[in-house]
Amino acid sequence: MKVGILGTGMVGSTLGSKLIQLGHDVRMGSRLANNEKAMEWAKSNGPRASYGTFSDAAAFGEIVLNCTAGTASLAALTAAGAKNLKGKVLIDVANPLDFSKGMPPTLAVCNTDSLGEQIQRTFPSVKVVKALNTMNCKLMVDPNIVSGEHDVFICGNDAQAKDGVKEILKSFGWNSIIDLGDITAARGTEMVLPLWLRLMGLFQSPNFNFKIMR
Amino acid sequence: MKVGILGTGMVGSTLGSKLIQLGHDVRMGSRLANNEKAMEWAKSNGPRASYGTFSDAAAFGEIVLNCTAGTASLAALTAAGAKNLKGKVLIDVANPLDFSKGMPPTLAVCNTDSLGEQIQRTFPSVKVVKALNTMNCKLMVDPNIVSGEHDVFICGNDAQAKDGVKEILKSFGWNSIIDLGDITAARGTEMVLPLWLRLMGLFQSPNFNFKIMR
Repeated sequence: MKVGILGTGMVGSTLGSKLIQLGHDVRMGSRLANNEKAMEWAKSNGPRASYGTFSDAAAFGEIVLNCTAGTASLAALTAAGAKNLKGKVLIDVANPLDFSKGMPPTLAVCNTDSLGEQIQRTFPSVKVVKALNTMNCKLMVDPNIVSGEHDVFICGNDAQAKDGVKEILKSFGWNSIIDLGDITAARGTEMVLPLWLRLMGLFQSPNFNFKIMR
Repeated sequence: MKVGILGTGMVGSTLGSKLIQLGHDVRMGSRLANNEKAMEWAKSNGPRASYGTFSDAAAFGEIVLNCTAGTASLAALTAAGAKNLKGKVLIDVANPLDFSKGMPPTLAVCNTDSLGEQIQRTFPSVKVVKALNTMNCKLMVDPNIVSGEHDVFICGNDAQAKDGVKEILKSFGWNSIIDLGDITAARGTEMVLPLWLRLMGLFQSPNFNFKIMR
């Protein structure tokens, strides 16, 4: 599978490397074609890895992952281009964390809206699936970092797109995937970030995850 | 122990009955002295149960529980009276759910503030401890409704007050109590409500809870 990754941070490089390991071809996109982090990532991930602009990555991918900072995601997706994204599945793992007012960050959008919904509204032909945003990126691609069974949440308006994302999550090692329904559920998964951040401070580690006990 | 309960709904009556069973004296308060639900609750809970106004309940309690609807909590506490609450531990189990714009409810306050913080600011001498607000009321007083170990979150500015609340939670059957720190952590626990509500819709049952896996 050809995957476009938007974003060159920890999340993008971690997900990109995992997808390469699983045999996919991955192009990492950023604002500039010659982003140093993207070049370095591609160099250390072998021939299946490439890099370019947001637009290059979106055009390359059969599916696209939004791994940009949440407050920059709409701009990055606009740069990626609606025509390059058209009809594709977009896995949105970003959180709209606003660090501009100091720590802890607040959410730039919440309660009556969410980043996932904003992206879906802005790019109506794109099949947005919100997933993996309630955990650290190392855990995203290796659930066994935390022992026992724990959960990954997904939501989105397109059932077939979600089925495809579930397969990708399974290939990462996820067994317990909770499908919360349509993209408005992104409010719920984005709004757990304040609790997540608090727990990370308490544990002094990002190696934890939510499990819904029933 | 003498406990004042503010609120006559499911949450107040469930917590009140549990506290009676554990041997405490409980006075349930409401806006009017002769609230029918409070009278009925007192009648069916024996001689240790009584009822009255918010002010009566707050004056009676060595500790006070806020079990009112979140959007009515500040008014209820104001009616209860700062002088009746002064220096006491207030366990705030409410969530600021706003149903006025239809379903699902939104939060009347979130992100940069929380109901727990609003109460603490409005009544600075009160030792506000936010607890139990991330679950259904039946589960609050009987964690065994959900099998396995799962968590209750607490936060507040006063360590001694939290120690007291932890003892009460243990008497309810709680083993895993996660102390998130000061009252600003109420943002985190109140903001999980949208996810909680979504999960309740998915499971068609309120009998579930969060467990932090590490």
